[in-house]
Amino acid sequence: MIRVDMNHIKDPGFLKTLNNEELIGLSEEIRTFLIEKLSATGGHIGPNLGVVELTLALHKHFDSPTDKFLWDVGHQSYVHKILTGRADQFDTLRQYKGLCGFPKMIESEHDVWETGHSSTSLSAAMGMAIARDIKGDSNYVVPIIGDGALTGGMALEALNHIGHEKKDMIVVLNDNEMSIAPNVGALHSVLGRMRTAGKYNKAKDDLEYLMKKVPAVGGRLASAAERVKDSLKYLLVSGMFFEELGFTYLGPVDGHNFDELDENIKYAKKTQGPVLLHVITKKGKGFHPAETDTVGTWHGTGPYKIDTGDLIKSSAKAPGWSALVAETVRKEARTDSRIVAVTPAMPVGSKLEGFASEFPDRMFDVGIAEQHATTLSAGLATQNMKPFLAIYSTFLQRAYDQVVHDICRQNLNVFIGVDRAGLVGADGETHQGVFDVSFLRSLPNMVVMMPKDENEGQHMVHTALNYDDGPIAMRYPRGNGLGVQMDDELKQIPIGSWEVIKEGTDAAILTFGTTIPMALEAAEQLESEGVSVKVVNARFIKPLDEAMLKDLLAMNMPILTIEEAILQGGFGSAVLEFAHDHHFEASIERMGIPDKFIEHGNVDQLLEEIDLTAEQAVKVIRSIVPMKEKRA
Amino acid sequence: MIRVDMNHIKDPGFLKTLNNEELIGLSEEIRTFLIEKLSATGGHIGPNLGVVELTLALHKHFDSPTDKFLWDVGHQSYVHKILTGRADQFDTLRQYKGLCGFPKMIESEHDVWETGHSSTSLSAAMGMAIARDIKGDSNYVVPIIGDGALTGGMALEALNHIGHEKKDMIVVLNDNEMSIAPNVGALHSVLGRMRTAGKYNKAKDDLEYLMKKVPAVGGRLASAAERVKDSLKYLLVSGMFFEELGFTYLGPVDGHNFDELDENIKYAKKTQGPVLLHVITKKGKGFHPAETDTVGTWHGTGPYKIDTGDLIKSSAKAPGWSALVAETVRKEARTDSRIVAVTPAMPVGSKLEGFASEFPDRMFDVGIAEQHATTLSAGLATQNMKPFLAIYSTFLQRAYDQVVHDICRQNLNVFIGVDRAGLVGADGETHQGVFDVSFLRSLPNMVVMMPKDENEGQHMVHTALNYDDGPIAMRYPRGNGLGVQMDDELKQIPIGSWEVIKEGTDAAILTFGTTIPMALEAAEQLESEGVSVKVVNARFIKPLDEAMLKDLLAMNMPILTIEEAILQGGFGSAVLEFAHDHHFEASIERMGIPDKFIEHGNVDQLLEEIDLTAEQAVKVIRSIVPMKEKRA
Repeated sequence: MIRVDMNHIKDPGFLKTLNNEELIGLSEEIRTFLIEKLSATGGHIGPNLGVVELTLALHKHFDSPTDKFLWDVGHQSYVHKILTGRADQFDTLRQYKGLCGFPKMIESEHDVWETGHSSTSLSAAMGMAIARDIKGDSNYVVPIIGDGALTGGMALEALNHIGHEKKDMIVVLNDNEMSIAPNVGALHSVLGRMRTAGKYNKAKDDLEYLMKKVPAVGGRLASAAERVKDSLKYLLVSGMFFEELGFTYLGPVDGHNFDELDENIKYAKKTQGPVLLHVITKKGKGFHPAETDTVGTWHGTGPYKIDTGDLIKSSAKAPGWSALVAETVRKEARTDSRIVAVTPAMPVGSKLEGFASEFPDRMFDVGIAEQHATTLSAGLATQNMKPFLAIYSTFLQRAYDQVVHDICRQNLNVFIGVDRAGLVGADGETHQGVFDVSFLRSLPNMVVMMPKDENEGQHMVHTALNYDDGPIAMRYPRGNGLGVQMDDELKQIPIGSWEVIKEGTDAAILTFGTTIPMALEAAEQLESEGVSVKVVNARFIKPLDEAMLKDLLAMNMPILTIEEAILQGGFGSAVLEFAHDHHFEASIERMGIPDKFIEHGNVDQLLEEIDLTAEQAVKVIRSIVPMKEKRA
Repeated sequence: MIRVDMNHIKDPGFLKTLNNEELIGLSEEIRTFLIEKLSATGGHIGPNLGVVELTLALHKHFDSPTDKFLWDVGHQSYVHKILTGRADQFDTLRQYKGLCGFPKMIESEHDVWETGHSSTSLSAAMGMAIARDIKGDSNYVVPIIGDGALTGGMALEALNHIGHEKKDMIVVLNDNEMSIAPNVGALHSVLGRMRTAGKYNKAKDDLEYLMKKVPAVGGRLASAAERVKDSLKYLLVSGMFFEELGFTYLGPVDGHNFDELDENIKYAKKTQGPVLLHVITKKGKGFHPAETDTVGTWHGTGPYKIDTGDLIKSSAKAPGWSALVAETVRKEARTDSRIVAVTPAMPVGSKLEGFASEFPDRMFDVGIAEQHATTLSAGLATQNMKPFLAIYSTFLQRAYDQVVHDICRQNLNVFIGVDRAGLVGADGETHQGVFDVSFLRSLPNMVVMMPKDENEGQHMVHTALNYDDGPIAMRYPRGNGLGVQMDDELKQIPIGSWEVIKEGTDAAILTFGTTIPMALEAAEQLESEGVSVKVVNARFIKPLDEAMLKDLLAMNMPILTIEEAILQGGFGSAVLEFAHDHHFEASIERMGIPDKFIEHGNVDQLLEEIDLTAEQAVKVIRSIVPMKEKRA
């Protein structure tokens, strides 16, 4: 048994000399390390416990970074991070300026491809394989992709191309029968059949036995036998789905058995052309609560108690946004049979379990397939259904064209619930929901709104579900509401109507959603300095409340817009556009996300970093109300 | 033989009473009609000649619009348009206010789903099938999708979901072995094997023959025989690829044989769950030049001579933009071995044939797979290659997330050639390249530029290929350059540098690309009125030429921005943002595409419709230089 101090691992090279018994010991130590570290920081415990042996075996048999590992989605790269010298940073995992929860080039030369969104690894690997061949290099390219990510359209596009071009590449299919939630889709069933491939291998034996019994005569019989044997290869290779696409299929391999992994990886390395190595792993392996999880609770968690497996709940007093929206949709669905919910693999994250159990025939989890989810919703809308498409802001990016071409262009009544809008915190730059304001607002026919609190949120859901003039998107942030009083009766909010939250005469702050408290805080501070600031809940990002905006501009009131979204083309720009189109020469300042990608960290720290704070708002307002001191 | 006056067809109902001989006659008449009409208007002749019998058979056996036909991509819907009462509009095909080249709800109740972009029909059909089942209706849902479109990621996502849910649906796979150019990809090979499925059916016969010869003994042999027979169904159904995904596979069917179509459509209608009806058609069938086309010339054409099959060339004096860019890339590739070209199924449209023949190992046509093409390019860039991703603006929408997450976030050196940027004309609203300015400019790390003419265009290509600080996109329009003198030596244009084309002191027009001549015309007109207008070639949309813009703003010069792109969040907004961020209270007016989808028509007519003209520019400038009359 080997004892390794994780913190002293600088490089995976030491694995080459370990035998499988030693690797088994190391696996145990890594599991203990992960279970302990993540109990404090939280993180993607389930996926990483599942790939301990696989990651060790890969790093033993390949030479990273010369050989390229591409971790699809990337939340399963913790073991890889430990083996490449980053164990000592796990106390800072997913924290501000700490270790990223995904592969990150800046952290290590062993991270050759950054991920976060699903299904990108095969395309990138193909790029690396092409580059290798053009340069005449001979390194291996090894994307590691889950069975969930494999159903994302772009992964299928890539399989199709890789199979066609016959490039040398070893695709490791990490099959744990889960994406985040349990997997769906026909391809998943195909994998299921492969998992029980013994049946087919048995059939192969049977056939050979059978053939031997056939009387050895010539003529038709001989050639028939020959042809059967020839064409049977399509059947008898259990991975015929991949074989059909041009891959050599290896597996299924027990992903927790070093002997099997050894044998198959060695064989894969010797095989020409694309190989699909089908590895069966158990998500959460070695930690009972995670290993027995069937719904995805232990995919990614906050801190937890190791001994009991209890998650340490944050003391939220208010409902979570996803739950609020999903439950309001569910309530409305009781009286409106047109309502159908669609999610791309996020039934848990989007809190649609309740809806699903009450309306199983009106709930569709399509797997990791944002494009399909979006156009499916459009198709439903053509038939006078009212689809609620629950999708994270960052993943809606994957369906941009479907929003443009299928939903907006046909002006279809799809309610897009843009979840995790704004900064998301620990998941970092791949997951920040900061582009949707720009990309949705530039589309004709689209209504974009964001509520100030959960009470307004439920009214907005009601508004969206009763809006029949085209697409309507409601943004809501990650996390919980403010703990406000909830109305019993739902009401409709007039489309394009803003709300004055606080009156004021010297300047106006126009903002929406999460940044409203910041605006109020700034206004309060300024009030104490004698500057009277109006605060407007600009809950409709599109259309703007033109009447109110015109009034403000006509009064020549200096304006500050604040948004937790990218500034270029954002809400502030919409205000600028309106002002100039109506020939107002106004003093308009904008605060928001600057022109860069924002890394992981606590949202408050991130806001501080980019000067999206009440203090900054105070400063800006002071700068645009210059005469105040004289008046005071 | 039936004689039908096409113009008198109001409804496809009359087909029900026609026998196959009569349908054959009608097919001939329709072909004659199409060949004649399209010789004058141009249009997608090849795809439509290929589906004459198929469309007749579908309309005979189904009841549109109760039964839903979804024409994927949609350029093959002409026969459907004829049968649903629109033959009399074919003289206006693809012209301003005329018949659309794609399905269009406003034209007919038989157009239940609008297309233009590829691979959306299966997702939409799934939405319609779900809606049908929830409502308890019993209509058929029939998407018709080409083998090219089938490899688009979202179609594969949809197949996966449809197979899983087992919804009743008849997917018609219109397999003509071409998308626009000849198809690529492993799935294409799968289809190829199915086309020659005789081999497998033969194998089935062989096996049964073989089994009979096996001595009829019990024990292991009997059960072995049984098992072989059982598992062989995976092989012996020739469409096992689709069977694996949960579809009942029917075919391959000769798509020009009414008897075969009858039989299989009838069988499909009786089959429960999803059916894939594999129909083999011949693109261009019945018109010799189109039928024998192997590269895609006759996919869509302008006017042609029926007798000779000669295309009537427009008398362009200047190089086409696609050719100019592709050929410049090719020239650079001779000295820079890092350069690789990637196209999603558009080697002809993007004029990459020359590059492909000179550098076959550095050219990758990935089929209709924009997402894969984009991330493949990102993967190449990680290995210090210099990928040129040639992609139409409208199709780049399909890869928005890949541009954000894979290219921009990792700041990779991909040169995106944004072809067909701006209004594209006859293809209409699905294909207008008007959103890219907004969606590209809001992304960190992205450089966006557009040249004023083909000479600057070649220098920009050179600039892009020598830019190593991240992604760089060059927009260029559909059509031809201006016929300017071309420099022999390529030079680099400083990133973010604008160019004053005409000096002026009263106002400035900032514009780029196709709208520069419009600006110059306006300036000339104003000059004659005594208003001196500066015209700036704002060739960098991002980054702006901040120095020049600051100077203009500091001079307090009224500014008009003009762009052939959507106004919300566009270039004009970038100028507004800059002005306000730097506290200039400037008079800035914007002209561009308004907040609506722009239909098909001649580009000049469309520009007129939306007031994007020199006359309008003159008017606007007059309005912002109010004191001029007094000064004059």
